[in-house]
Amino acid sequence: MNEQYPSALLERAVGEFAKLPGIGRKTAMRLVLHLLRQNVATADAFADAVKTLRHEVKYCHVCHNISDTETCRICANPRRDASTVCVVENVQDVMAVEATQQFHGLYHVLGGVISPMDGVGPNDLEIESLIRRVDEGGIKEVILALSTTMEGDTTGFYIYRKLENSGVKLSVIARGISIGDELEYADEITLGRSIVNRMPFNGTN
Amino acid sequence: MNEQYPSALLERAVGEFAKLPGIGRKTAMRLVLHLLRQNVATADAFADAVKTLRHEVKYCHVCHNISDTETCRICANPRRDASTVCVVENVQDVMAVEATQQFHGLYHVLGGVISPMDGVGPNDLEIESLIRRVDEGGIKEVILALSTTMEGDTTGFYIYRKLENSGVKLSVIARGISIGDELEYADEITLGRSIVNRMPFNGTN
Repeated sequence: MNEQYPSALLERAVGEFAKLPGIGRKTAMRLVLHLLRQNVATADAFADAVKTLRHEVKYCHVCHNISDTETCRICANPRRDASTVCVVENVQDVMAVEATQQFHGLYHVLGGVISPMDGVGPNDLEIESLIRRVDEGGIKEVILALSTTMEGDTTGFYIYRKLENSGVKLSVIARGISIGDELEYADEITLGRSIVNRMPFNGTN
Repeated sequence: MNEQYPSALLERAVGEFAKLPGIGRKTAMRLVLHLLRQNVATADAFADAVKTLRHEVKYCHVCHNISDTETCRICANPRRDASTVCVVENVQDVMAVEATQQFHGLYHVLGGVISPMDGVGPNDLEIESLIRRVDEGGIKEVILALSTTMEGDTTGFYIYRKLENSGVKLSVIARGISIGDELEYADEITLGRSIVNRMPFNGTN
């Protein structure tokens, strides 16, 4: 046991929290002591929620989003447009797009982006299953909604090469000046792309 | 279930993390998804560390610090000076003082400070047990090492009133300009106190 810690149990719990991304040992200590101050039922509820999630979570067999059922709520919803598929990196992105209430199709969750630096190749992602989904027919449009990073662009291009001859319409979400941004503070790459990709103006858009 | 979440299990785990101090729902989501990406054994180790700590943690019956045993390692150490007791707010403060390697006495952990705003009164803290420890004899000096906040000062004054006639020497840790601080950037209250509480200079201190 580290001499610094008054208790091995405490040190172990702090060590586990400190493994989480963005949590240092001081923050970990603060979180653990908070849980210690709660009653047993509250601390157990915390631990059980983590354990149950990890043991019982499912991934939708169609879109690979996290789900409580074999087919997720979105894929199982007959009112969603099954001919349009939005390709995203992870579950947070699904939630972000859903929050806009502007998309009524289905999703395909890749589970990451191609990143040679992190050892993530195309086979570590749900790309093959996307190609199969398209090959099975019924999909008219695939919308790429990936981050505008090197990795996101690489992944988008990889999918483009795989699907360019499939007959499906491929599109990418618009990239440009954010709503509310002042032009003089926009970075020049974004501003440049928003000029190149300018759109017909109808007076309101 | 909140429509936003694709899974009730996920929502529950995120909700539990978001109850922790300083953790919002976005951070909670990031932490939970990190745990989901780990293998089952890693996620279980995390949950078990929390559960075991909460169920099995003990508090030293002498100083009330967190401990794995009835009497903590510091109180049980015959080489520590049992006649000097340092009063601190919590376990982190014990660790901070220990890290200085400048204190060789025992501790008394109050478990907080008096804070009417948060509903914390003297009876919610280990003050009565401190008085008893002093009454039992053997303690020559009680050092108050509390935060220099309104609550810390109130708590210190409360303990002062309880112990002023006990015959024990009461002292408070020095407050002044931090080592490495530039005078012109020190706040005026700290600077003022450091002038009032000036000490004889021996050429090195």
